[in-house]
Amino acid sequence: MKLAYDGTAFSGFQIQPNKRTVQGEIEKALSKMAKGDFIRIKGAGRTDAGVHARGQMIHFDYPKYIPAEGMLRAMNTLGPEDIVFLNSEIVDQTFHSQYLATGKIYQYRVDNHQLKDPFTRLYAHHHPFEMDLKRTQKALAVLEGTHDFTSFASAHSDKEDKTRTIYEASVMIDEKTEEWIFTFRGNGFLYNMIRIIMGTILQIADGRRPLEDIKRILEAKDRTAAGPTASPKGLCMMEVLYDEHTLDE
Amino acid sequence: MKLAYDGTAFSGFQIQPNKRTVQGEIEKALSKMAKGDFIRIKGAGRTDAGVHARGQMIHFDYPKYIPAEGMLRAMNTLGPEDIVFLNSEIVDQTFHSQYLATGKIYQYRVDNHQLKDPFTRLYAHHHPFEMDLKRTQKALAVLEGTHDFTSFASAHSDKEDKTRTIYEASVMIDEKTEEWIFTFRGNGFLYNMIRIIMGTILQIADGRRPLEDIKRILEAKDRTAAGPTASPKGLCMMEVLYDEHTLDE
Repeated sequence: MKLAYDGTAFSGFQIQPNKRTVQGEIEKALSKMAKGDFIRIKGAGRTDAGVHARGQMIHFDYPKYIPAEGMLRAMNTLGPEDIVFLNSEIVDQTFHSQYLATGKIYQYRVDNHQLKDPFTRLYAHHHPFEMDLKRTQKALAVLEGTHDFTSFASAHSDKEDKTRTIYEASVMIDEKTEEWIFTFRGNGFLYNMIRIIMGTILQIADGRRPLEDIKRILEAKDRTAAGPTASPKGLCMMEVLYDEHTLDE
Repeated sequence: MKLAYDGTAFSGFQIQPNKRTVQGEIEKALSKMAKGDFIRIKGAGRTDAGVHARGQMIHFDYPKYIPAEGMLRAMNTLGPEDIVFLNSEIVDQTFHSQYLATGKIYQYRVDNHQLKDPFTRLYAHHHPFEMDLKRTQKALAVLEGTHDFTSFASAHSDKEDKTRTIYEASVMIDEKTEEWIFTFRGNGFLYNMIRIIMGTILQIADGRRPLEDIKRILEAKDRTAAGPTASPKGLCMMEVLYDEHTLDE
């Protein structure tokens, strides 16, 4: 199933005791539907507390046959208001939402107005300093390609190999809302990687750091060389990528 | 001062004991600023619980001189996250935010997608039925002009004279979000008037009521002739209108 959620009221995706999580709420709804049978779900990626999604993917085994359309309707009825199920498909046993993902697309929204917009305060990071678009684009371009992203990974990252490929790191300014919308497309992202990239990029964008720093930070392979971790609310998981044949049977 | 607020977490604008209200929060911030002196504010209009604002206007007497810019900065620092002060001006004693208002502009947003968008669920009314734009526009046109709006006023309205002039009642579909955005510009609106108009217009838009009903309802001068009161979250006070000279000194 493909789903969207407003991450504001969740302690992240992953289930945790006594916390309201995306996984916890979905498993609760599924178990209600299966008359008490516990059903474990697996998500393509674990978003942190406050991080949103417009294209998270999950898979699970359901004990009996239900048409995909019926499952979609049922989950939208039984699930909470802040999760919306967008699509449902019956896949074969070999499908795995996480292991078969070949990449992900994330968006990071920045509200650059001097005064915070009360209607996007939960969905965009507020950065009220003058930013240079060209400079920002140049910094992002340095990140594209295959690199060791150790400097941009949380010290809590449990991944041994920190080499990832970013196919696209770009930014555009929305004509209507004037928001800065950053797009990151890559084969995988380390824990907190986009938020640390954003915390650093914003320092370059507003002139607190020289543009050359981005290359220096990458080469340092040291988390302390990079900027702070930007707030989770600006981040949204937009799409999980699979090989074309993965979902076609 | 001109202000915007996300109405979601407020029990409306007007102060009420033991409730979180816009007026209550602003008066609390002002009193903090004035070192405990209580300061009463007056708003141009009392928005209901869940109703939003992008252009509410308030006025108040502050015991000592503070430059307008300083007041703006202070209130944005002391006020809560879901209220943003957009503008501040020092006016003479004759100004009154409510009595001198010559009109108001409201917007009503409708999410017409089959599945509710989790990111606009607090800011748009969800109406997942097929709607006819031409038909909707024809119904809105009937409301323009000077009419007795008794049928579209809450039974709790305390206004004797229910005649109001609507200069504009229009709708457009946002190209990007596909939301239906309704605009109402008038010299004044009765209690719940726009929400009852919207509850009725949506029934005409999706074909549950004939187009001719709108004229019939106006003429009935009876609240029970109209449709239900649409949800508050779609409604936003966009602008309060004053005569040009009112704010120019």
